[in-house]
Amino acid sequence: MSGPTAYFDPAKASALDPQTRDLVERRARSLGSAYRLFYDEPVQFVRGSGTKLYTADGTEYLDAYNNVPSVGHAHPRVAAAIAEQAARLTTHTRYLDRALVDYAEDLLGEFPSSLSNVMFTCTGSEANDLALRIAKAATGAPGVIVTANAYHGVTTEIAAISPSLGGRASLADWVRVVPAPGDGDFAADVRGAIQSLATAGIQPAALIVDTIFASDGVRVDVPGFADAVASVRGAGGLFIADEVQPGFGRLGTGMWGFARHGLQPDIVTMGKPMGNGHPIAAMVARPELVDTFGRHVRYFNTFGGSSVSIAAAQATLDVLRDEQLIENARNVGDYLLEQLPAIDGIVEAHGVGLFIGARVASEDVALRTVNDLKRRHILLGESGLNNDVLKIRPPLVFDRADADRLLEGLAAVLA
Amino acid sequence: MSGPTAYFDPAKASALDPQTRDLVERRARSLGSAYRLFYDEPVQFVRGSGTKLYTADGTEYLDAYNNVPSVGHAHPRVAAAIAEQAARLTTHTRYLDRALVDYAEDLLGEFPSSLSNVMFTCTGSEANDLALRIAKAATGAPGVIVTANAYHGVTTEIAAISPSLGGRASLADWVRVVPAPGDGDFAADVRGAIQSLATAGIQPAALIVDTIFASDGVRVDVPGFADAVASVRGAGGLFIADEVQPGFGRLGTGMWGFARHGLQPDIVTMGKPMGNGHPIAAMVARPELVDTFGRHVRYFNTFGGSSVSIAAAQATLDVLRDEQLIENARNVGDYLLEQLPAIDGIVEAHGVGLFIGARVASEDVALRTVNDLKRRHILLGESGLNNDVLKIRPPLVFDRADADRLLEGLAAVLA
Repeated sequence: MSGPTAYFDPAKASALDPQTRDLVERRARSLGSAYRLFYDEPVQFVRGSGTKLYTADGTEYLDAYNNVPSVGHAHPRVAAAIAEQAARLTTHTRYLDRALVDYAEDLLGEFPSSLSNVMFTCTGSEANDLALRIAKAATGAPGVIVTANAYHGVTTEIAAISPSLGGRASLADWVRVVPAPGDGDFAADVRGAIQSLATAGIQPAALIVDTIFASDGVRVDVPGFADAVASVRGAGGLFIADEVQPGFGRLGTGMWGFARHGLQPDIVTMGKPMGNGHPIAAMVARPELVDTFGRHVRYFNTFGGSSVSIAAAQATLDVLRDEQLIENARNVGDYLLEQLPAIDGIVEAHGVGLFIGARVASEDVALRTVNDLKRRHILLGESGLNNDVLKIRPPLVFDRADADRLLEGLAAVLA
Repeated sequence: MSGPTAYFDPAKASALDPQTRDLVERRARSLGSAYRLFYDEPVQFVRGSGTKLYTADGTEYLDAYNNVPSVGHAHPRVAAAIAEQAARLTTHTRYLDRALVDYAEDLLGEFPSSLSNVMFTCTGSEANDLALRIAKAATGAPGVIVTANAYHGVTTEIAAISPSLGGRASLADWVRVVPAPGDGDFAADVRGAIQSLATAGIQPAALIVDTIFASDGVRVDVPGFADAVASVRGAGGLFIADEVQPGFGRLGTGMWGFARHGLQPDIVTMGKPMGNGHPIAAMVARPELVDTFGRHVRYFNTFGGSSVSIAAAQATLDVLRDEQLIENARNVGDYLLEQLPAIDGIVEAHGVGLFIGARVASEDVALRTVNDLKRRHILLGESGLNNDVLKIRPPLVFDRADADRLLEGLAAVLA
């Protein structure tokens, strides 16, 4: 089991104050052993606004970690859109809904014209699961190529292509793993994976990658990316861009991560920030692919594209544009990337926009830094293959003052 | 491809009024060919309240079909809970949240004490997918037994155990299908499926059934159910009760369908009405099963159990109790079952609570009835293996006056 490890250790519950301990223990009894809490001392927030979270006693925390509330915690326009729609009607896509069609067209306007169909789900896992179902139906092939520490979600099918969850032994036999870009020759590695599948009599359905390679430690430049995609297409497979992490402007260079690389995917998936916390996700694809799938099977997602979900997504997209948050992500991200290396204890910083990794000396230092920062009321995570990278991935409304507060906090705890 | 067929036929778009046609065509271009609309003439609702839906010109429709808005369309308490929480905070389960723990305990209080862990997802498909992952991890076995026309969801894994979606040819090779109860000897059929798996060298992980057998035409009595479950357990497998359709009181006999049969499942899944339309679903299980799973893999569902989802679910559960909707489902359901057979053209009526099927002479009659009723502003669906059954499955606030309006409408269009 890999992944972030700045989790609360239940064996240390006795060190907590009595109220927190009681809640932690009740939680463990009812939610069971698969759930995790952040931090040495778990924290409960009762209110949020912009980049700030507040505990019951009014203590303010700076959120430099959460990527879901992308336009800011409890954004009033998104909250109002949800409230208005929930009080009026929540229903599904088998009735006509002008707002659904308007949003679909608005979202598709952000994609190359060849990607002209959108299907709505509730989670990024469901979007990736649907993308693979469609890719397999359209190609008639089962093979899938992923990167070394890829994470694409938690359905059975998607867990079976996500080495970051259970290691390579947990993957399906139709999956091939290639080193993350920069750890090898990406184009050659993908060609090798296609060859390895062919040796087993398997054709590739798709190469699927998170276009910022988040769980592989954030890879900004990907030499050979276009060649890798061309090889997969040459073997009959598709290119799926997983935009659940980088999408909706986080990278500060436009709406989607794939565009940075000059690529046109066959299928794109998105989720987390799409409704600023409301459960909505989507898959965008070339219509020919959807047609092949639609001929074989019926698909209906009860809550996918429901009225309140669309209201939340439209308001989020409107705010993203009106508040020019992509530009803000670029400006504040550039500033952080410039300032971080000057801090003693930061070995190097890499990333783009508001998706930044800052490497420290070791996993121990990273874990101590995350917990020390939390005691100073700044929220951060850590990740990377060696868990020695501080993950800076705040709401896109993170401004220069927030950045300075984070930089000062980092300098203090690393000193 | 089976399932309800009272769908709009895109080839008939030219018969629609220009505004509707334009919206239908825009929708088809952006959502693609996998989406369906209800009715000969698709309808757009802009507002709902209780059992009523309204179009933009104020026309009122009686909803005798939708099972998701279980405590009534746009229930003010649920809408207020969503609005309050969305304006304050939406966050995930890795921070402490007293409301999450309170709801988890409240929900688990509705189950036998052996079922003491709950995990939250966003959709019933995700809940069933997680249930199978846990069942397979806990038993170390891959085999799954389902009923003839079962529907459990749309992820890759769950579509592969759902014959109603793509027929038997679409199922995985570790799936065995048994006739629905009443079409054979259920206990003997399940023993036969275990034997068939054994012949292929496959142990059973689980028997999974919708406890009202909705897609198998609604089966109220299940002779041999306990024996079937005992056989599966004898072979090392688990019993999973899919309560996505019958759960949360629809059957009028208590909260869950499995309880009607005196059974204790190992895992229970639920969804649709859980948040009255908000995307929340869950899986409840024996903690030993979750422990086995949790030792092997990490599980995190970004939106599952998030603050607004829990607020919606708690409000829905509170209303279900405070308005005594389970009792209402029993009373109004009994009344419908008593009155329906007196209508000329209804061959027979069966069901329990507010889950009722009324058989008519043929699929043609069923489709005509559904579309004629819609023109009289009453919403109903049709289903059944021969598509000759009118599906009566209204919000649980459906009252005696609603029932009389439905009965009068049925009598008029069937005359």
